[in-house]
Amino acid sequence: MPIAPVLTFDGLLHTAVTIALIVLVAVVVRFVVNRVIGHVAAGAGVPGLLSLLRRRRGVSDADRIQAFGSARRAQRARTVGSVIRNAATILIFGTASMMVLGQFGVNLAPVLASAGVLGLAIGFGAQNLVKDFLSGIFMLLEDQYGVGDHVDLGDAVGTIERVGLRTTTVRDVTGMVWYVRNGTIERVGNGSQDHAVAVVDIPLAIDTDVTRAAAIAEEAAAAGIAEHGHGADVLDEPQVLGVESLSASGMTLRLTARTKPGRQWVVQRAMTERVVAALRADEVMLAA
Amino acid sequence: MPIAPVLTFDGLLHTAVTIALIVLVAVVVRFVVNRVIGHVAAGAGVPGLLSLLRRRRGVSDADRIQAFGSARRAQRARTVGSVIRNAATILIFGTASMMVLGQFGVNLAPVLASAGVLGLAIGFGAQNLVKDFLSGIFMLLEDQYGVGDHVDLGDAVGTIERVGLRTTTVRDVTGMVWYVRNGTIERVGNGSQDHAVAVVDIPLAIDTDVTRAAAIAEEAAAAGIAEHGHGADVLDEPQVLGVESLSASGMTLRLTARTKPGRQWVVQRAMTERVVAALRADEVMLAA
Amino acid sequence: MPIAPVLTFDGLLHTAVTIALIVLVAVVVRFVVNRVIGHVAAGAGVPGLLSLLRRRRGVSDADRIQAFGSARRAQRARTVGSVIRNAATILIFGTASMMVLGQFGVNLAPVLASAGVLGLAIGFGAQNLVKDFLSGIFMLLEDQYGVGDHVDLGDAVGTIERVGLRTTTVRDVTGMVWYVRNGTIERVGNGSQDHAVAVVDIPLAIDTDVTRAAAIAEEAAAAGIAEHGHGADVLDEPQVLGVESLSASGMTLRLTARTKPGRQWVVQRAMTERVVAALRADEVMLAA
Amino acid sequence: MPIAPVLTFDGLLHTAVTIALIVLVAVVVRFVVNRVIGHVAAGAGVPGLLSLLRRRRGVSDADRIQAFGSARRAQRARTVGSVIRNAATILIFGTASMMVLGQFGVNLAPVLASAGVLGLAIGFGAQNLVKDFLSGIFMLLEDQYGVGDHVDLGDAVGTIERVGLRTTTVRDVTGMVWYVRNGTIERVGNGSQDHAVAVVDIPLAIDTDVTRAAAIAEEAAAAGIAEHGHGADVLDEPQVLGVESLSASGMTLRLTARTKPGRQWVVQRAMTERVVAALRADEVMLAA
Amino acid sequence: MPIAPVLTFDGLLHTAVTIALIVLVAVVVRFVVNRVIGHVAAGAGVPGLLSLLRRRRGVSDADRIQAFGSARRAQRARTVGSVIRNAATILIFGTASMMVLGQFGVNLAPVLASAGVLGLAIGFGAQNLVKDFLSGIFMLLEDQYGVGDHVDLGDAVGTIERVGLRTTTVRDVTGMVWYVRNGTIERVGNGSQDHAVAVVDIPLAIDTDVTRAAAIAEEAAAAGIAEHGHGADVLDEPQVLGVESLSASGMTLRLTARTKPGRQWVVQRAMTERVVAALRADEVMLAA
Amino acid sequence: MPIAPVLTFDGLLHTAVTIALIVLVAVVVRFVVNRVIGHVAAGAGVPGLLSLLRRRRGVSDADRIQAFGSARRAQRARTVGSVIRNAATILIFGTASMMVLGQFGVNLAPVLASAGVLGLAIGFGAQNLVKDFLSGIFMLLEDQYGVGDHVDLGDAVGTIERVGLRTTTVRDVTGMVWYVRNGTIERVGNGSQDHAVAVVDIPLAIDTDVTRAAAIAEEAAAAGIAEHGHGADVLDEPQVLGVESLSASGMTLRLTARTKPGRQWVVQRAMTERVVAALRADEVMLAA
Amino acid sequence: MPIAPVLTFDGLLHTAVTIALIVLVAVVVRFVVNRVIGHVAAGAGVPGLLSLLRRRRGVSDADRIQAFGSARRAQRARTVGSVIRNAATILIFGTASMMVLGQFGVNLAPVLASAGVLGLAIGFGAQNLVKDFLSGIFMLLEDQYGVGDHVDLGDAVGTIERVGLRTTTVRDVTGMVWYVRNGTIERVGNGSQDHAVAVVDIPLAIDTDVTRAAAIAEEAAAAGIAEHGHGADVLDEPQVLGVESLSASGMTLRLTARTKPGRQWVVQRAMTERVVAALRADEVMLAA
Repeated sequence: MPIAPVLTFDGLLHTAVTIALIVLVAVVVRFVVNRVIGHVAAGAGVPGLLSLLRRRRGVSDADRIQAFGSARRAQRARTVGSVIRNAATILIFGTASMMVLGQFGVNLAPVLASAGVLGLAIGFGAQNLVKDFLSGIFMLLEDQYGVGDHVDLGDAVGTIERVGLRTTTVRDVTGMVWYVRNGTIERVGNGSQDHAVAVVDIPLAIDTDVTRAAAIAEEAAAAGIAEHGHGADVLDEPQVLGVESLSASGMTLRLTARTKPGRQWVVQRAMTERVVAALRADEVMLAA
Repeated sequence: MPIAPVLTFDGLLHTAVTIALIVLVAVVVRFVVNRVIGHVAAGAGVPGLLSLLRRRRGVSDADRIQAFGSARRAQRARTVGSVIRNAATILIFGTASMMVLGQFGVNLAPVLASAGVLGLAIGFGAQNLVKDFLSGIFMLLEDQYGVGDHVDLGDAVGTIERVGLRTTTVRDVTGMVWYVRNGTIERVGNGSQDHAVAVVDIPLAIDTDVTRAAAIAEEAAAAGIAEHGHGADVLDEPQVLGVESLSASGMTLRLTARTKPGRQWVVQRAMTERVVAALRADEVMLAA
Repeated sequence: MPIAPVLTFDGLLHTAVTIALIVLVAVVVRFVVNRVIGHVAAGAGVPGLLSLLRRRRGVSDADRIQAFGSARRAQRARTVGSVIRNAATILIFGTASMMVLGQFGVNLAPVLASAGVLGLAIGFGAQNLVKDFLSGIFMLLEDQYGVGDHVDLGDAVGTIERVGLRTTTVRDVTGMVWYVRNGTIERVGNGSQDHAVAVVDIPLAIDTDVTRAAAIAEEAAAAGIAEHGHGADVLDEPQVLGVESLSASGMTLRLTARTKPGRQWVVQRAMTERVVAALRADEVMLAA
Repeated sequence: MPIAPVLTFDGLLHTAVTIALIVLVAVVVRFVVNRVIGHVAAGAGVPGLLSLLRRRRGVSDADRIQAFGSARRAQRARTVGSVIRNAATILIFGTASMMVLGQFGVNLAPVLASAGVLGLAIGFGAQNLVKDFLSGIFMLLEDQYGVGDHVDLGDAVGTIERVGLRTTTVRDVTGMVWYVRNGTIERVGNGSQDHAVAVVDIPLAIDTDVTRAAAIAEEAAAAGIAEHGHGADVLDEPQVLGVESLSASGMTLRLTARTKPGRQWVVQRAMTERVVAALRADEVMLAA
Repeated sequence: MPIAPVLTFDGLLHTAVTIALIVLVAVVVRFVVNRVIGHVAAGAGVPGLLSLLRRRRGVSDADRIQAFGSARRAQRARTVGSVIRNAATILIFGTASMMVLGQFGVNLAPVLASAGVLGLAIGFGAQNLVKDFLSGIFMLLEDQYGVGDHVDLGDAVGTIERVGLRTTTVRDVTGMVWYVRNGTIERVGNGSQDHAVAVVDIPLAIDTDVTRAAAIAEEAAAAGIAEHGHGADVLDEPQVLGVESLSASGMTLRLTARTKPGRQWVVQRAMTERVVAALRADEVMLAA
Repeated sequence: MPIAPVLTFDGLLHTAVTIALIVLVAVVVRFVVNRVIGHVAAGAGVPGLLSLLRRRRGVSDADRIQAFGSARRAQRARTVGSVIRNAATILIFGTASMMVLGQFGVNLAPVLASAGVLGLAIGFGAQNLVKDFLSGIFMLLEDQYGVGDHVDLGDAVGTIERVGLRTTTVRDVTGMVWYVRNGTIERVGNGSQDHAVAVVDIPLAIDTDVTRAAAIAEEAAAAGIAEHGHGADVLDEPQVLGVESLSASGMTLRLTARTKPGRQWVVQRAMTERVVAALRADEVMLAA
Repeated sequence: MPIAPVLTFDGLLHTAVTIALIVLVAVVVRFVVNRVIGHVAAGAGVPGLLSLLRRRRGVSDADRIQAFGSARRAQRARTVGSVIRNAATILIFGTASMMVLGQFGVNLAPVLASAGVLGLAIGFGAQNLVKDFLSGIFMLLEDQYGVGDHVDLGDAVGTIERVGLRTTTVRDVTGMVWYVRNGTIERVGNGSQDHAVAVVDIPLAIDTDVTRAAAIAEEAAAAGIAEHGHGADVLDEPQVLGVESLSASGMTLRLTARTKPGRQWVVQRAMTERVVAALRADEVMLAA
């Protein structure tokens, strides 16, 4: 550690210049980082990011942005941003301070070791956070779902309320709102893309005449759709695929109809009601 | 290791100045860290943090702060703070001592290696702690739930008693109080946001007339709500969605009603009671 | 740290040359990296990669490329690419800046330590991403499945809609679209390779004459296939393997037929229907 | 490695002084560490720590300290302390020895690498230990439970026998004593805080008159409480909430009563007995 | 950083020589690595590796090599090899470039730190890949299974289609092809080694005469084997071991016969059929 | 790397002295380590360690030591010790050799890197071993169980046969001996401490007179204890707690009696037999 | 980097000597490592290791060694050994080459960083291998099981066929051979040590006279043992422990007998047969 030169004029000059340089860089870096955080947190970055994405369904950009941009959410985002900004400031100026100390010939190993272990613990603890954000960014970029889609996230099944960078919010059928961390989502099932399928599995006794039951069921399903006025929702005629499963306790006949996305449940209910009634009326035996 | 200069006057002067600098910085850092810990632990930081958040429901700041500020909890928080403060002091002065030793030309590698391995073990062990706090901070910032909300945390289902940085406290229906570490919460279900839905799944025999059963059920549900005086809690008329499921052992008819948050259970109970009675009275067959 | 020479002419010259070198290398590296990212993201790299693969089934390259090349997907890929490109630019120029600082004799240890801990947290968080891409690359290279194959990915069972580097998209029988991260797929079941097998497990009462039941079932299965016109789909005659399982509640007779890939379900349904009818007609007892 | 100066007088003097400094520091550190370990292990530290905590329930400090202070446990704690003290001594003097070696100009890299790998293996292996102690400290600081509380630790359900820094001891209803490592406890359910709730779920046939059954049940529950002399344990009147669940096999009526902590089971048993008897007496049908 | 000598003649000469050395070594290493990758990937290395192994069953080397050597698979292997080769080239020349830069006195710490963090993320993400290959190598060396063996890999049960270094391919009973990553296989069950056992568990009512039932079953099992012409497949006479389990719902009698590997199922089916018929004929009660 | 001084006399002398120092230290360290390993492995250390522990139950030191000290086990322990000793010797002398090499001015970085990666792999692989030993040491220090105790280790339930530092051996009720790695034990249930509780859950039909059933059961339980001569094993009178659970299929009455540890099963069996007989005799309905 | 001296005579001499030293050490290390690997792999080391172990049961050393020593296995072991040897050679000579490069003043940091990241990925991937070997070594040293023992490894239950350092081979009751990686075995159940217990749980109707049933059962069990000639296998008289469990569907009476290891199943079957027959004959009601 050639510390002597520090006390010469050249050394002192060099030290002063270096310190000035360090402080300057630190101030610049902090300014840039704060700007970026501010943009992202205030939602300014997200619509820009979103505008790069093609819309798949008839959802306007406004709808999608609403997921980020409403006043209250913007404010909450600003709070999150200010917290992250403070953390970044501490990190940047702390680093710069240590570099200045280093210019005076102080042995930095102990403080770096302390900071390293501390940083490691925090880094390990923070990996979930990083996972959440990275997953969120890629799910957004890949446009896996948007506000209003019916999704199955494993933990939560329901309608998307908000797509966030860290968490996705889903409201289920009982009105419960689920906050799911993006990093914990391993697979996403989206029931609102292009088309959906209404499926009715009809339980039959094992000695049923399957051909006749299928004919009655198809007719009744079509009638049920017409009766409830769901004709516009159904893309194909309902169709019996055949015996789906066979066990000692009976058979199952599967009937399906392709529908518009989001309409599969109403179509399914309409078909179920009429199919059961028709089979009963014709004395085709349902499994008891 | 140019140790000779240490014994010259310049070297000694430089060493003395550097040591003074190290001690000064250590004292300042310790002062700042203790202040921050004190603020956060004593709850002083949290209301400030909270005041940045917009309230979503009609919960006053006082209610929310009560989650942090009651006398007893403040005292316990101070205890936690004092323990953390001691740990920080040991870490800071230990680091400074090693730096001073280093100024005397001692080879610090062995002690840094020892401290590193020790620190690693503690850092690994402490990552859960860090996860808990980071999760807690983000859940607080995102305002996922507040005191009094009915939540489903997976491990614990019930009413929030306290929102902490490390643990969330929930009291379940049997009066048991659950302490859940924030880092172990993967998804949060909040049943107290905007509205809730009362759901009644009515079991029917497979040869029931669904249309008639649905009419009776809707009427009975409305009557049940009126009878128990829950009219103000219900946002929409109760509505039969249709046959929800079909199996060899019967059908299930789903009836739902949107309610104010937290009122779904009383509405649901009121509807259930009357719907069952009405169906029985009209001899619509419930599944046996 | 021999900083004095920096102020000599030689030292200044050397420093200037080195800095120029650093900047030059950084610009070149960034150019190359951006080109590679651009190629891969825009799908230009993938068909090239795909063209190296032999087709196993009658799927044209166009079909396979369609998995990557459609206009909308190309655009989305470009978005992803531009995000990754920005990240790479920040990393490369950040690194170069630090190297330039280092040439001025600044002690870089503190900033490297800070960046290292940050990088570690991000690196840990990003390992899932890396796993996803590596898995995707190998699954593509090994040609485990293509668009249109019927697959079982554990999380999702259905027809492949898109094969991506990070996620695979599958549409299941209810029309739900599943996005599965490639790194979470531990085993892939592909039901569309070379041939498939239609399997019917017939439940029999424990006092059935198995030999007679097997004869009736084989004949009925062949008749069922003929009746529904699936003769061209079946590679072998349907065959009864024998009693598959025996328990207090009855026996199970297994009947199988090898079919063309993707035709196993229609063949299975055709056989099931006729076998059940035939056994009932001949009063062979099915398990009750 | 400027080893020559070591052989000059100045060098030798400096080396001698440094070695003396290292030994001195090592002795002081060992003394302090042993003191701290001794205090904590002998339970001297824990009551001090405990005295900082506010008591929530009517449990004297003596009771709580008894969790740590009985003679036998003190002795066992001393044993644990002596083992940890030996480990600390080996670590401290081993580190000092290596530093002394380093002063003689020995290249310490190999021995540090060996020790590092060894330390890493031990550090990894020891992270569970660290997790246990950290969890224990925070659970103690947050006062999640005390001796005598009825808790549900997931692995073990019963009454707390001892609260330790590494393990918590619980005795369950069959008298079995469970040692649970604090680090494996993800959530704690404490049934002894403020109040508890006695819950009776009454099974009813689906054609029961719910209103009448509820009236009878409430009256009988109150009578049951009075009859068994539990009046002082019950904070509110027992109350029927309504139909809790509805299925094809019957309804469930939920009756609850808030009680003093720890009294919920006796109250629940008293209410159950009378409610069943009363419903049977009045020929209100229980589900069969 | 003694940069001055670089500008002397000696220094320049030394620098030039060193750089030439670095480039030379890089070219040589790349050549060797590419050769090795080419050999392994093109399957040339694997038969060599296989030829070291002793064959256990009557499987010719040709059959085993077919697992690696068919034209299409060789081509696919070449593709994989070319990808890996490119990665290796980038790594080797990138490393050499940095070393050359280092010879000019550039401070490499920042770029090493960046590359290290990147490499760490990739290294973590790639550990699954390494696990797969290492597991594959050891399973191959230990000859745990070969093409055509019936295996139970936990995830997939069926017949081995291909043994690869990264994945094993299994076709199950429904004709589905499973790709299982070798690293996810914790235990392998191989049903094609030396011999197999056909097991029939016969359900009996609790008041059956076990001795008589056992005699009838053994005789019938032998007759069933003879009738279906499986005599050559069976190594021992079928034997009743005795009452295997006893519960309130009946007893289970276990009958076993050692068979040639792969013949256990046909033997089992033949025995089951006759044993059930014989017991029924002799009015020995099967469990109802 | 100022290697020139090595060739001066002073340098050579210094090198020789340093090498001698290294060898000396290595020999001393190896001697000490071998002694410690020998003591621990041969069981000499364990009784000493055990003697520090207070005995909780009437188990002599001899009994406990027998867990470690029998001749055969001592020999096996010596084998383990000799293996570990060899590993330690290789590590110590390998380290010393590298240090000696380093004194000759050899650049040790490559060999340290190689050894580091190797050591890391082994260190990771060995962490389970370390966990097992650390868990074993703490379980021993905390005296969680001793030879002969009835324990529930999750994986294995039965009687402790041997308490080891790495594994615990338990013999279960079927005579099977379980070797459980100490590190995999998350909670220990010990049924042999202070007292145990015999619990009889009596199933009753829903229309039983609970008061009368309870009276009969208590009397019969006491009679059963007396009849089988277990009076000395029972600490309290058997007592009916009340209705434990209520469901559509009946009630459960819980009867308990505190017993001496290890006697709970015989007491429980004696009470069960008499209680069932008495209730049947008095025509109190048991659930059918 | 004082590279100038390299060009002096002293420097060149020193460099040459150092390089010669490095090469020499590398060759020696490789020789030793290869020897060790050869010994262990060829099974030469294992019997030596085994000879240190005491035999617990009447298994000759020959039997045990047969687990390692048969010709085919020795050959396979040699193959494994040659692969590992090649890996070791590459590692040792690669390290030495880098050290030689380092002597010429080449900056090794980049290549060490590359190798480090690569090594890390491999090291992480290889940790399972290390775990398997370490577990295998300790299981062997602790003599947990030998060839022919009946074991329960969780994944596989059956008879040990081979005890290996990496995998254990077990053949189950259906003749399937299981390869279980030693590192995945968390607990081992060994049913062939010292003695075993035959357990018969007899289901009884709830209104059975337990005393009489127990007397009949004990007598019948003894008769069953005598009848089948298993007298020599049974160590104690069969004994009825009492009512093991009580539920609404009946009681269970437990009967046990200590047997020689490996004979528990035949004894159990013999007892079961006679006990059931005897109870039926005496019209003691078995649970229906």
